[in-house]
Amino acid sequence: MSNVTVTFLPSNVEIQVPHGESVIRAAMAAGVHINASCGGDGVCGKCRVIIESGPVEAEPSERISVEDRAKGYCLACKTFVQGDVAVRVPVESYIDTSALQRTAPRRTVSVQQIGLEEIKQQGLFLPAVEKIYLELTPPDAQDHLPDVTRLVNHLRLQRDEHGMEVELPVIRKIPAVFREQDFKVTVTLARPVRSSGKTKIINVQAGDTTAQNYAVAMDIGTTTVYGQLVDLVSGKVLAEHGEFNGQISYGEDVISRIMFAEKPGGLATMQQVVIATVNKVLAHLLKHHKVSREDISREDVSLITFAGNTTMTQLLLAVEPRYIRRSPYVPTATVYPPIRATDLGVDLDPHVTALVYPQVSSYVGGDIVAGVMGCGMYRTEKLTLFMDIGTNAEVVVGNKDWMACAACSAGPAFEGGGIQFGMRAAKGAIEDFSIDPETLEPMIVTIGNQRPKGICGSGLITMVATLFEAGVIDNQGKFNRELKTARIRENNNVYEYVLAYRETTQIDRDITINEIDIDNLIRAKGAIYSGCKTLLKEVGMSMEDVEQIILAGGFGSYVDLERAMIIGLLPEVDPEKVIYVGNSSLLGARMSALTNSIRQQVVGVTNMMTNFELSETPSYYDNYIAALFLPHTDVHQFPKLQARLEERRALIAKARAGAKNAD
Amino acid sequence: MSNVTVTFLPSNVEIQVPHGESVIRAAMAAGVHINASCGGDGVCGKCRVIIESGPVEAEPSERISVEDRAKGYCLACKTFVQGDVAVRVPVESYIDTSALQRTAPRRTVSVQQIGLEEIKQQGLFLPAVEKIYLELTPPDAQDHLPDVTRLVNHLRLQRDEHGMEVELPVIRKIPAVFREQDFKVTVTLARPVRSSGKTKIINVQAGDTTAQNYAVAMDIGTTTVYGQLVDLVSGKVLAEHGEFNGQISYGEDVISRIMFAEKPGGLATMQQVVIATVNKVLAHLLKHHKVSREDISREDVSLITFAGNTTMTQLLLAVEPRYIRRSPYVPTATVYPPIRATDLGVDLDPHVTALVYPQVSSYVGGDIVAGVMGCGMYRTEKLTLFMDIGTNAEVVVGNKDWMACAACSAGPAFEGGGIQFGMRAAKGAIEDFSIDPETLEPMIVTIGNQRPKGICGSGLITMVATLFEAGVIDNQGKFNRELKTARIRENNNVYEYVLAYRETTQIDRDITINEIDIDNLIRAKGAIYSGCKTLLKEVGMSMEDVEQIILAGGFGSYVDLERAMIIGLLPEVDPEKVIYVGNSSLLGARMSALTNSIRQQVVGVTNMMTNFELSETPSYYDNYIAALFLPHTDVHQFPKLQARLEERRALIAKARAGAKNAD
Repeated sequence: MSNVTVTFLPSNVEIQVPHGESVIRAAMAAGVHINASCGGDGVCGKCRVIIESGPVEAEPSERISVEDRAKGYCLACKTFVQGDVAVRVPVESYIDTSALQRTAPRRTVSVQQIGLEEIKQQGLFLPAVEKIYLELTPPDAQDHLPDVTRLVNHLRLQRDEHGMEVELPVIRKIPAVFREQDFKVTVTLARPVRSSGKTKIINVQAGDTTAQNYAVAMDIGTTTVYGQLVDLVSGKVLAEHGEFNGQISYGEDVISRIMFAEKPGGLATMQQVVIATVNKVLAHLLKHHKVSREDISREDVSLITFAGNTTMTQLLLAVEPRYIRRSPYVPTATVYPPIRATDLGVDLDPHVTALVYPQVSSYVGGDIVAGVMGCGMYRTEKLTLFMDIGTNAEVVVGNKDWMACAACSAGPAFEGGGIQFGMRAAKGAIEDFSIDPETLEPMIVTIGNQRPKGICGSGLITMVATLFEAGVIDNQGKFNRELKTARIRENNNVYEYVLAYRETTQIDRDITINEIDIDNLIRAKGAIYSGCKTLLKEVGMSMEDVEQIILAGGFGSYVDLERAMIIGLLPEVDPEKVIYVGNSSLLGARMSALTNSIRQQVVGVTNMMTNFELSETPSYYDNYIAALFLPHTDVHQFPKLQARLEERRALIAKARAGAKNAD
Repeated sequence: MSNVTVTFLPSNVEIQVPHGESVIRAAMAAGVHINASCGGDGVCGKCRVIIESGPVEAEPSERISVEDRAKGYCLACKTFVQGDVAVRVPVESYIDTSALQRTAPRRTVSVQQIGLEEIKQQGLFLPAVEKIYLELTPPDAQDHLPDVTRLVNHLRLQRDEHGMEVELPVIRKIPAVFREQDFKVTVTLARPVRSSGKTKIINVQAGDTTAQNYAVAMDIGTTTVYGQLVDLVSGKVLAEHGEFNGQISYGEDVISRIMFAEKPGGLATMQQVVIATVNKVLAHLLKHHKVSREDISREDVSLITFAGNTTMTQLLLAVEPRYIRRSPYVPTATVYPPIRATDLGVDLDPHVTALVYPQVSSYVGGDIVAGVMGCGMYRTEKLTLFMDIGTNAEVVVGNKDWMACAACSAGPAFEGGGIQFGMRAAKGAIEDFSIDPETLEPMIVTIGNQRPKGICGSGLITMVATLFEAGVIDNQGKFNRELKTARIRENNNVYEYVLAYRETTQIDRDITINEIDIDNLIRAKGAIYSGCKTLLKEVGMSMEDVEQIILAGGFGSYVDLERAMIIGLLPEVDPEKVIYVGNSSLLGARMSALTNSIRQQVVGVTNMMTNFELSETPSYYDNYIAALFLPHTDVHQFPKLQARLEERRALIAKARAGAKNAD
C-alpha cells in the first residue's frame, strides 16, 4: 500500500502515513496533539478537525452538527486519508507544537520475513529437511536389490553422503509407495546435525511432491503460543497464528505453573494442556495459509521446531520442573535430543522430528537462545545488546565470540502486570498517548479504536515518557503538584492522572495512571537497564561500546524507541542501531528450520553463553538503585536526550507562561 | 558329572559315558547292537542284558522273570550305570560287532557358552550397553549446573567420549533419581555403533546397580522363538527358553505366513502374535534364571537383540513381506536401524533398544548373518563352510575377506517334514537307530525314552546311513529286495522297513520308513551338498579347500557327523574340522549384545555376503543331479568313507553267509 502525505495546520507538520490511515493516528505519529479521550471510537466527539484539502473518507457522526459538517469539520478518528491531505487542527493552546515534532517517525518494520534474505545471501539457506524426487529402476530378474538398498544406493550415487539411515516407519511405507507410481518417488531427507552424522530418510511419497515441504515453528510463551507455517522451498512464512497457552487457567506465571506441576498428575496435565494449544495453533496454520484454500496435508509437514523459556520447555517435554524454583535453581537439562513429535502428542505424522531449543539456565531459556540464533547475533562481529522484554526480561551482550546473559527481575509491568489499569496488548488497550502541554488534556488511541479498557505496556511507556517530557511528572515519577487540572487528583492518598472519564470507557470507571503504576514501570525499566549495564561492566565494557541493540519480545515490535530512551529503558543510541525483531523466540524457531548451521552451532553457542545471576553479582544493586530515576540518576548517560528535554521544557514553560498572561 | 567306562561283552567294546547313562544309550553310542523297539520305554522287553560287574541302578521290570533276574538279567533301557560296568549282550548273530565300532564317539558339546571365552581372549568382550556407578557433587549456591550437564561433564572427565546424548525419557527420570540417594547414581550407557558416534545415556538408577545389567537375545524362528537372558557383566547365559512361534496357527512355513499377512489386518496380526510369543519367552527368562528366585527387574534389562530369517524379521517389525514371495523376490530392506523395543510391543522398559540383525536377501536372512557373526566366521582367515540346517537350509562359504551364500531348496525333511512318520525333535521321536546286520532287527532309542511316535531329522539321517551301511538299501535308497525279513515289506507298491510294530508305539500303528521318505532325504541332502559345491565352484574353489565346517541349526546339535558324511550331506572331512554351534541365530543374537565390534561390522559383512540364487546359477543343476545318490555319484569325493564302507560290507556279507551256513 502506498504512502500519502498528511499536512497538519497551523503547525505545518507533515507526515507520511499509509493510504487509508485515520487522521488521529497520523496526528499521533506526527506529534500533533488533538484532544481525544475515547480511544478512536468516535463517541467523545473531541477530535474535531477541518479537512482543508485532499481526499478523505469520513464516517458521519452525530457529534458534529450539520452546520459544522458544512464547514468541513469531521472527527479525526473517523476520517481516513485517501491521498495527500491538509488537516487544520483547532488551536486551543498557544504553543508552537512544530517544535515538539517527533524526531523520527515510528518505524514500521515487517518482521515476518526477517533474516531470510540475509541467510540466503550468506548461503546459509539450507533447511534441516529436504525433499528429493527420484526415478528408481524397478527390480527385475537380474536385479534383486531390496527396496531400501535400491533407494540408498541411488542417493549415494547422486549425493556425497557419509551414510544414510532409514527409519522403521519409512521402511514400512516403502514397499507400497514404491509400487504406486512405478518406483517414482519423493523422499524426505533430514540432514545430520554434525557433518559426520548420518542423513536420515524420514519419509517417502509416491510421485513428485517436492513442491510441498513445510515446517512449523512454535514459540511456547508463558502467555501465548505462536506458530508459523514455513515453506521450506522458498523459506517464506505462509501462515502465522497465536493462541493463549492453555496452561493460563492453572496460573499466570511460570512459578504457579511449576507449583501446579508438582501436584500429583500435575506435570502430565501441564504437558497435555500446552500440547492441546500447540495442536490448536497447528490446525489453524494448516487450514488458514497463503498456499490455497485447501488444508495442508500433515504428510507434507516435515519438521516442527520449538522455542520456549526453561519452564515452558520442561513442561512441554514433561520434564519435572520443581528444581527450577528451588535454590540453587537448577534446570534439569539444557540440551534436548531430537524428539519424535508424536511422542509428545503433537498431531503430526510419525516421521516428524521436533527440535527443541536448548536452555542456558533456569531463567535464561530456549526462547532467548532462539533469539540469539534467529537474529544472527551468533554470527556477528558487532558488540550486540539483545533485550527480550515480555512477561520476563532477559538480556544478552556479546557477539559471535563471547556472550554474557542474565534474567532481569523486571516483573510484568511491560505486559500490563502490576499496573492498576494494566492489560495485555488487546483491543481497547491504550497504546498511544499525547498531552496538550498547556491544557493537559489527553489524546489517546486504543488498539482497535475502541473505547478504552486499560493500558498496555507500550502505551504505558509512551504515557510516562510523555508526562515526563511535558513536566507533568518529575524524574522520580511524582506528579507536579502545582499543575492546575481536574485530571490530576489525589485518590486514597495517591496522585493520579485521569486518562479517560467513565463515560468514554468500556469499563464504567475512570481510567487513570497513578504514581504507584509509574513507580512499577520505573523499577521494571531500572532492572533491565541496570542488568545490561552490569553485564557489560562484568566483561569490562560499557553502554558506549554497544554497536547494535536487538529489541525483541511481542512488546518490542510496538514500543516507541525515543520514548523508551526517555524513560531510560534503552540506552541512548542512534535509532539506526536498534533493530526490532518482534517475537525473537518464534524467529529463532523458524530460522532453525531454515538453516542447518543453527542446529549445528546452537549447542556450542548455548555453552558459550555465560549466565550471570544478577542477585549474586555485587555491582548489580548499585546499578539498579541508580537506574530508579527518569531517565537515570546520571543524566550524562543520556546527553542528547537531556539537551532536547531541556529545550522542550523551556518551550512548554514559555507556553504556559503565555497562557497565564493571556488569562 | 564324571564319566564312567562301560565295557560290552563279548565284543569287548569300551565306551565312556556320563555317570547315570542308560545301558542302551551307552550301547548305541558304542555301536553295540541290542534289539530294542520301544524306544527305551521298557515295554518291549527285548533289550535284555546281563550286568557282569560294576554298580548299576536297575528299575525292576515284569518283562524279566524272577529266575532271569537272579541270573543278572535286566533291561538295558532301564538300567543306569553308577560306575565302571561290564555288560554282557546275549549274542544273537555271528558277526564280530567290534569291527563295526564307531570310529569316533559322538561329541557332546555344550554350546551355551560358545564364543564367550574366545571374544574375551581377543579383547572383544565389550557389551553394547554398560552400567557405570557415579558419585556426583550435588549443586549448591556456587554451582548451578543443570542435572544433565552435571552428569555429562562428570562422564566427560572420567571417560574419553566424543559426545554424549541423553534421551528424553532419561532426562525425565533424572531429577528424582539424582536426589533419591544424594546424587549417587548408576547410569546405563549405550555405545555408539560407529566410533565417531555419540554414546547415549539410556537409563539412570539411584545407588549402585552395576551388578545387575542384562540383555535378552532372541532367535525368531519360523517354528520356535528361543530366548536367552545374558549377564552383561560376566557374559554368561543365565537362562534359556523356547516357545513355539504363535504364528504357527496361521501356517507352518514362511510362504503361508506371508500369504496371511497379505490379508487385511493380517500383517498387524502376524506382528502381534510373534511379539506375544517374544513376551512369553521374555517373562519366562526373567522368572526362571540362575541369579536368584526373584524375578529380574525389567529396569535392569538394558538391551534386546533379535535375529531371524527375512520373513520373520519383516513380520516382527510389521514390514510388508509380500514381495519376498513374488518374482523377483526382493525383501524390503536389509538393514534396520536400532528400534525402541516398546515401539514393537516388547514388554520391556522404554529405554531398551532392540537391535535387529540385517538380512542379505529374501532367503538368506538375519539368522544366517547372526550365525556368521556369532560363530566368528567374519573374523577368521580359515576358509569356512557354514551350514544352517533347519526348516530351510542356508550355506555360506568364505572367511573374513569374502563370503558367498545361498539358500538351498532342501525342504523340511531334516525337521521331519515330507516324511510319513516324520516329526520334530520332541519326546517320542526316534533319534537313534541301529540294525542287526544279520537278523535285521532294529534297536531304536527315542527322545525321552518313550514308546515311539515318529522319526525326527537326526534319527532319519542315522537310519538312512545305517541302512545303507548295512546294505539294506542301495546307493539310490532302494531296499535290497533279496533280504528276508518281515520288517521289509511292500505297502501300496512302496517298499518300507518296520521300525516299530504298533504294540510298541504310542500311535497304534506300525512306524515305518519307506523309499519315498528316503528319496526325500536324498533330495534334501543333495540340495545342500550341491549348494555348497556350487558356491565353492563359483568362486573357483572346491570342497577340498574347506578348512572348517560350522554346522548350525537346532538340528546341527544332534546330528551324527559320521552318518551325515555317509549319506553325503557333509563333505568328507576330518571330524575335528567340524564345529557344532547349535542355534547359531541365537548365538549371534547373544554375541551382538556382548561384543560391540559385531554391531560395528555387521553391516559391512552383510554387504560383503554375495548372494547366489542357485536356481539361476547354471552349474547348480548338474551338481544337484550328481548328489542324488548315497553318498554321491562320484564316490571319490568320499574316499575314506568308501574304503570303510567296503570293509564293513564285506564283514556283513561274511556274517550273513555264516548265518546261512549255520542254518
